[in-house]
Formats: sequence, C-alpha cells, structure tokens
Amino acid sequence: MPTTHHVENHFTGGEMVRDIVIGMSDGLTVPFALAAGLTGAVTATHIVVTAGMAEIAAGSIAMGLGGYLAARTDMEHYHSEKLREYKEVDEVPEIETQEVVDFFRTHGMSDEEITPVVNAIKADRHRWVDFMMRFELGLEAPVAGRARRSAFTIALSYIIGGLIPLLSYILINNIQTALYTSVAVTLAALFIFGYVKGRFTGLNPLKGATQTVLIGGLAAGAAFLIARLIS
Amino acid sequence: MPTTHHVENHFTGGEMVRDIVIGMSDGLTVPFALAAGLTGAVTATHIVVTAGMAEIAAGSIAMGLGGYLAARTDMEHYHSEKLREYKEVDEVPEIETQEVVDFFRTHGMSDEEITPVVNAIKADRHRWVDFMMRFELGLEAPVAGRARRSAFTIALSYIIGGLIPLLSYILINNIQTALYTSVAVTLAALFIFGYVKGRFTGLNPLKGATQTVLIGGLAAGAAFLIARLIS
Repeated sequence: MPTTHHVENHFTGGEMVRDIVIGMSDGLTVPFALAAGLTGAVTATHIVVTAGMAEIAAGSIAMGLGGYLAARTDMEHYHSEKLREYKEVDEVPEIETQEVVDFFRTHGMSDEEITPVVNAIKADRHRWVDFMMRFELGLEAPVAGRARRSAFTIALSYIIGGLIPLLSYILINNIQTALYTSVAVTLAALFIFGYVKGRFTGLNPLKGATQTVLIGGLAAGAAFLIARLIS
Repeated sequence: MPTTHHVENHFTGGEMVRDIVIGMSDGLTVPFALAAGLTGAVTATHIVVTAGMAEIAAGSIAMGLGGYLAARTDMEHYHSEKLREYKEVDEVPEIETQEVVDFFRTHGMSDEEITPVVNAIKADRHRWVDFMMRFELGLEAPVAGRARRSAFTIALSYIIGGLIPLLSYILINNIQTALYTSVAVTLAALFIFGYVKGRFTGLNPLKGATQTVLIGGLAAGAAFLIARLIS
C-alpha cells in the first residue's frame, strides 16, 4: 500500500516519545549541570547529592504537573472555543461564511472555485464548526487521558535522566573523582540519548547527539563558573 | 469591523508572551523549590545562593539553547518535508490527489462535492504543496529569526524568575528568616504571575493563579522533604 508507506515516511515519533525526550533532555542536563557546578564551590559530595535530589524532585514536579495542567487547560480551551463557534454559526452565519470564503481566498482559489466548497462545508453544522476549529483557529481535538499519561511520562523521564549524573556522587566519596566520573558518564548518556532522539525524530542522529552534548556541556560549564565566582 | 472583533475574541497571546510564560513559570518554580529544599539540609545561606545561582545558569541555558535548537530543527524539518511534497506532487500525482480526496472525505464531504475542490487545489503546484503541508502534515511555515528571539526571551525570563526567590537568601543571613521571606515573596510572585498569565491566555485569572501557586508549593514541599530525608 503506497499510502501507508507514504505516511510512515513522514513519521516523526509518537507523543510518548516526545514526552520522554522533553523529560529526559532536561533531566540529564540540569541536575548534571547543578551537581558539576556545586563542585566548584563545596567539598562534600553529600551536599551535591542533596541539592541534586532536591532539584530532581522540584524539576520533575514542575515539569510533570506543569505539563498536566497545560494539557488540561488546552482541553478546556478547545471545548469553550467549540461552543463559541457553534454559537457563532447559529447567530452570525453570514460572518462565519465570509471567514470560510476568506480562508480559501488566501489559499489562492477564485470565487467560482470557492462557492461549491463553501456550500458543501455549510451544509452540515458540525462539519462547519469542525472546519472553523481546525482551519481558522488551528485547534486539534485533544485526546482524553493524555494529560495524566503525559505528566507521568515527563516526570519519570526527568527522574531517570537526573539520577544518571548523581549516581557518581552517591557512590564515590572523593568529590573530584565523582565530578570526573559524572561528567564522563553523563556526556556519554547525552550522546546516546541525542543519537536515539535524532533517529526517532527524523533528525540526523550524529547531529542530535552533538546538540545534546553541547547543551549539557555548556550548561554544566556555566553553572561551574557561576558557582566558583560567587562562592 | 465584526471580523476583527471576532479575531480579537480568540486572541490567546503572542509567541513572546508564550516564551515569557515558559521561562518564568519554571524559573519561579525550580530555583525556589531547590533553595527551599536545601534549607532542610544545610544551615549556611551562601550554599543555598550558590546552588540557586548554579541552577539558574544551568536551567536558563538548557531551556534557552534547547528551545533554540528545537526551533532550528523544526525549520529544517519543514523545508525537507516541503521538498519531499514537491517531489511527490511531480512524481506520484495520483497518490497525492487521492490524499486530498481522502482528506475531504474524512471531513464528511461527498464525492460530487469533493471533485471541484480537489481540481481547484491541484490547479496550482505551489497551492497543492501548501495544502498538503498544512492539512496533511499539520506543519506551519516557521518564522525566520524566531529561534534566536525565542531562546533569548525564555532564558531571560528564567533568570528573572529565578532571582526572585533567591533574593531573600542573598540579603538575609539567618536561613530560617530567609526561607520564610523567600516562600512569602515567591508565592506572591507565583500568584501574580499566574493571574497575569491567565488573563493573557484566556484562562480564568484566579484559576491560573491557583495553579501556579500549587505547582510551586508542591515542588518546594517535595524538594524540602527529599533534602531533609537524605541529609
């Protein structure tokens, strides 16, 4: 089937992959950078671990709960806009008709071409509202249950990503050795993560890997400098 | 003009407002929660300030640079998909025609209604590709220069948001007093921010304010508990 083949070519990763990417890229980067930064200011690994754990708790809740509420708000927004469109289609049909006409006009169609399309869309009230929702407002119907699943995936990915750089500080007592191990382990993890992310999102894998390593490295370097300067 | 009025009703804030919201909601939440959390484990405010500053450096770079690269990737993805669509329209026009037909069919139009629309769209190669980009793939043309502007706005908002909770620890030496002041100042800032955000995004302002305060409070509480448990 050529159509299926065609669709697969455009595949850019599902929503779960997107959520894992969101959670893990920040989870691997920020706790890593914070921990590395603190080694420029303190000498005890337990402070680095405490700060890192507190950051993971704060970051995963902020991202997960923030994502959950944003998805809930999107859903409420969608339903209130839909009610408004139904109201407008009933109360000011001439304005709504003009909006459909304008829409096709901006897509380069002539008035003779537009008339039958507009009449077809207007023939059904629900179809008309669906059309306005999707093409005038650019709103897609949100999937039920998505908010909770998304929040959980993002938060868990953040926690897993954040534990990778912290593990060295938990297991190794010497703060310099812990730092070097954490940097090596996390840059490797960022490289693998960026590579896999690149493959899933259709980006060049090596380019994806370079980008995530670059962000993590710059963030950690900046955090280290700031911590050393002010301590 | 009723159409302009109508559009304004649907206004949900520009892209800059969106970027400020993204940067500031995390900036107000995560450094706040980290600093509050650390007071459960350390007694010197300078460690809290150092960790907080390192977090702001790491978070603003991760969010800003991450946003920049994501926007750049979107732009590259858009252009490569557009080239692909041009190629497909030229090489397999019958499959692309069927996709336009299927698209209108899923929107409930009959074959007699579809034929003139499909012919109008196919009459111009660029219009045809634009149609496929927007409605088959749901891709909007990215705005040039947007990536850099967006990265800068997000990072700056994160820094400003993050400095608000840290100010108390910088100015007040007693860690308990600094904590209480930071909590009061930041919850007030989260409330105002959530209220303004609600107004800009069309959400109920009081609901927006309650949500941001809730996320910040929960994140800080969790960070505090974690830090106290492991220290």
